Amino acid sequence: MDRGPLSKRLAYFGPAGTFTEEAALAYDALAQLLPFPTIAAVASAVEAGMADEGIVPIENSLEGSVPATLDLLIHESSLFIRQEVILPIDHYLMARVGTQVGDLKAIFSHPQALGQCRRFLERCFPKAQVVAALSTAAAVEEMLASDLPAAAIAPRRAAELYGAAVLGSRIQDQASNETRFVVLAKEDHESTGQDKTSICLYIPADRPGALVEILLEFSQRTINLAKIESRPSRESLGRYFFLVDLEGHRADPPVAAALAAVRSKASMFKLFGSYPRSV
Amino acid sequence: MDRGPLSKRLAYFGPAGTFTEEAALAYDALAQLLPFPTIAAVASAVEAGMADEGIVPIENSLEGSVPATLDLLIHESSLFIRQEVILPIDHYLMARVGTQVGDLKAIFSHPQALGQCRRFLERCFPKAQVVAALSTAAAVEEMLASDLPAAAIAPRRAAELYGAAVLGSRIQDQASNETRFVVLAKEDHESTGQDKTSICLYIPADRPGALVEILLEFSQRTINLAKIESRPSRESLGRYFFLVDLEGHRADPPVAAALAAVRSKASMFKLFGSYPRSV
Repeated sequence: MDRGPLSKRLAYFGPAGTFTEEAALAYDALAQLLPFPTIAAVASAVEAGMADEGIVPIENSLEGSVPATLDLLIHESSLFIRQEVILPIDHYLMARVGTQVGDLKAIFSHPQALGQCRRFLERCFPKAQVVAALSTAAAVEEMLASDLPAAAIAPRRAAELYGAAVLGSRIQDQASNETRFVVLAKEDHESTGQDKTSICLYIPADRPGALVEILLEFSQRTINLAKIESRPSRESLGRYFFLVDLEGHRADPPVAAALAAVRSKASMFKLFGSYPRSV
Repeated sequence: MDRGPLSKRLAYFGPAGTFTEEAALAYDALAQLLPFPTIAAVASAVEAGMADEGIVPIENSLEGSVPATLDLLIHESSLFIRQEVILPIDHYLMARVGTQVGDLKAIFSHPQALGQCRRFLERCFPKAQVVAALSTAAAVEEMLASDLPAAAIAPRRAAELYGAAVLGSRIQDQASNETRFVVLAKEDHESTGQDKTSICLYIPADRPGALVEILLEFSQRTINLAKIESRPSRESLGRYFFLVDLEGHRADPPVAAALAAVRSKASMFKLFGSYPRSV
């Protein structure tokens, strides 16, 4: 495999052994992978030219959006979404070699992973202490260093990387558990004919009907909305940014016309980018 | 203060020393407070008649919605929202008595609190290890038990309860940091003339224009929407429940007419309740 100096430098929300590393490998197995400790650091690495692109999680089918990524796109970053990558997420229960399931006193993982396995944990380990960690990889490290008989919830690859034994496979509460990752870069993607566009809007609090007016700009042009979501403005309760994903590329004439109309109606408009729709 | 057997039994997302306990005291200082370890446990306590009402956080002005509360209302609970309580959230940095700020090697808190103080932590403690805990109260306990010189981020009351020393006050990134809590009960609130109604909708994936049609039912009757938010359906990516907060009581004639129309258009409709608007 070529990981020489000419391959793409891809920053990811690391360390190795996280689902984002899996998504990075699924996106570009030949890229030079650069782990960064936070989602904001991945974006900074791309903005500063230390990496060509960066990959971060944005949404999980069970737990919902990843707030740190949405807030980064809204408030901090000038990067665009260039690609989306959808990965099935299978959680594994792992422990030090020799640990027995009946002895487990503590379960470590990232809160998102704990949330995705909530029912499994309540049923199988109602008395175990649940311990939050900052990443699934950190959970495995903390589990291995724990004084108690403990397990961690993490991707299968983490068991190989850290030499842990797998006690249980696919323990998430819903078989169809998927995470959507986005690739951030200084430019978005050219049109492919099967695209999606993500935008962010702010609507003044004194014009509550404005959201419907804006959505009509899309529905009257038969542009389908894939998603609409609100995020707090960080000013005060009751003020929101709206994040809208719509079908089509910003260069498609009906989408371009709708975006121009929306831009004139919203008091803030930010284009996150157009990119190929993952199916 | 009367905390006798005839006062209201109010379950809250505890333990003592969390912001939810503060909200419970602000809501009803005479109630008999019953701490429960999870948001789901608070609801179960009310459903089973172990408590008359329960209070849980639903939304923060910096970090956004509390997914566990939304998912409980959507998927699990038959309780109604009877009241909302808005509390200013001030975070305090606290440590064992005698610990010096310059020595801190680790900072413990709940991920929501860590998120609300992200900039403060990056500026003042760029090298400290950030450790996630399951509640702000648990963070204080873990900090006190830590081998490293450590601090915790928690409400001021936690410092008193656990005998910790306050090192820094109001360290959140935005002065206007507020959390909205909801009181859950077997019945919602009668009309007061200054109300809000929360509903949940599911719209079939093959009718993308249906959301706009539904929102028009409100805007055509000049019913203001206070909030619209999407939550994953837990089935697969791209399927969402929509949570809508609107102004008015479900018994007000225009609201009743709009809700009847919406109920016939959505493939799933759930009323979370009508309750007095907090201002």
